[in-house]
Amino acid sequence: MYDCIIIGTGVAGISAALTLRARGKSFLLLGSPSLSSKIGAAELINNYPGLPAISGDAFRQALSVHLQSSEIEITPAQVTGVYDMGDHFGVLCASSSFEAKTIILATGVEAVKPIEGELEFLGRGVSYCATCDGMLYKGKKIVVVCTSKSMEDEAEYLSSLAAEVTFVPLYKGAEVEGANINYINDMPRAIKGDMRVRRVVFGKIEVECDGVFMLKTALAPSALVPGLKSREGHVEVDRQCRTNLSGLFAAGDCTGRPYQYAKAAGEGNVAAHSVCDYLSGKK
Amino acid sequence: MYDCIIIGTGVAGISAALTLRARGKSFLLLGSPSLSSKIGAAELINNYPGLPAISGDAFRQALSVHLQSSEIEITPAQVTGVYDMGDHFGVLCASSSFEAKTIILATGVEAVKPIEGELEFLGRGVSYCATCDGMLYKGKKIVVVCTSKSMEDEAEYLSSLAAEVTFVPLYKGAEVEGANINYINDMPRAIKGDMRVRRVVFGKIEVECDGVFMLKTALAPSALVPGLKSREGHVEVDRQCRTNLSGLFAAGDCTGRPYQYAKAAGEGNVAAHSVCDYLSGKK
Repeated sequence: MYDCIIIGTGVAGISAALTLRARGKSFLLLGSPSLSSKIGAAELINNYPGLPAISGDAFRQALSVHLQSSEIEITPAQVTGVYDMGDHFGVLCASSSFEAKTIILATGVEAVKPIEGELEFLGRGVSYCATCDGMLYKGKKIVVVCTSKSMEDEAEYLSSLAAEVTFVPLYKGAEVEGANINYINDMPRAIKGDMRVRRVVFGKIEVECDGVFMLKTALAPSALVPGLKSREGHVEVDRQCRTNLSGLFAAGDCTGRPYQYAKAAGEGNVAAHSVCDYLSGKK
Repeated sequence: MYDCIIIGTGVAGISAALTLRARGKSFLLLGSPSLSSKIGAAELINNYPGLPAISGDAFRQALSVHLQSSEIEITPAQVTGVYDMGDHFGVLCASSSFEAKTIILATGVEAVKPIEGELEFLGRGVSYCATCDGMLYKGKKIVVVCTSKSMEDEAEYLSSLAAEVTFVPLYKGAEVEGANINYINDMPRAIKGDMRVRRVVFGKIEVECDGVFMLKTALAPSALVPGLKSREGHVEVDRQCRTNLSGLFAAGDCTGRPYQYAKAAGEGNVAAHSVCDYLSGKK
């Protein structure tokens, strides 16, 4: 059992990992080995103290070097759920699971907000994870909404199972191909149904389906952690980055604006210190 | 009238200045041109994301370069009081004064806590500012408690005025000299008196005096800003770095633990964003 599992490899998650390492705690850092795609996307960062006028790409490189020199490895994993087990937490991933005494959520924010019906039908036809739920839709008709090129693998896997796929890329340059795939280049407006999902509503048309996969790089925290308090899509935390769940902390963009590297670095640091306080209080 | 006055040139103050510059606000950054002495004091910093294993001195250098490249100048000033004037703030310094619509307090923490009687006798024999109050003690007997070598100038100025000076350095290697100066190498325990200060109590002796100068690099926030809410020596702030005084924000070590560069950088950033929100709400 780890002292802590950090979910997310943006600035907040990395900052938390560096501080937990300095404090000698055991932890897993779950995320993408190439770090958050958002870090590299910034054209020029002028207000991260100590690194004047740095490009997003150079900043990502600096963080990578920092992790390597601190001998911190990233465990590639797509987290599908975090469960409070009373005295510890279970973290379910697409193809593995882990346990830890504490959790730091540093999942960032997804630019795409949940659409109408998405959270209501979660588990009743709406899924965030191709690996977890794909088999349920073998030979069926599905809609796949994809927010990032990095998720196309999952879309391709789904098209190998389903009979018919309506593919809805919310980015440019999509390259998912297959005889059973139809593209729709429009924002989905709502997911409708009765006991289960029946159709997805677009601007001008509706598409009948058995299920909807929302392939996102970051999940809404409330969808990831049952019982977690959030407000307007952000995790509610106090000044110590504590959430309403004892032992579970949050840092960075997922806790709210400003969406800034310095703020994320600061909160990752604070959350790591709160983890240390929590662990020493438990002994 | 400035949009904002930032008080303090530690990491929090610098971070706030960089963000206010990025947002096009007019501001003054008050403090020491050589930056906070505490930044340089750190032997090795391992957990400031993006700058692996950096010495305090190298970090201070990086921050200086960052300020220069952003064309941000530091206004050297020792702030003695911040006053809420209703729709703006007045900032009194030893030999000047300024006005601004908002304030960011980034004053750090003084390792030396107020001693018994210090706050009670403030303005009745206790002073924090040689330039402001020195003349009041011409030909008198004073105790000068000095927490940092950087304040020795003020001690020397006082010794040129007073008849008799008991000099109490709380650091090693003090070099204040004069025929009217006696050293005491002990922690002061309490300041006693009636309507005014009468004596300072040390471990074994008591020293009679007309006044006490406490020369500190950082003042207790409650001593600096009348009406400011603080708790256990830290300014009380919310997640947006707002204090109980509308338009006055605080960031960095002065808001509480952890005393960490990343946390200070984050809060400086957040406070600057809150200043922008506040200013746009005022228009």
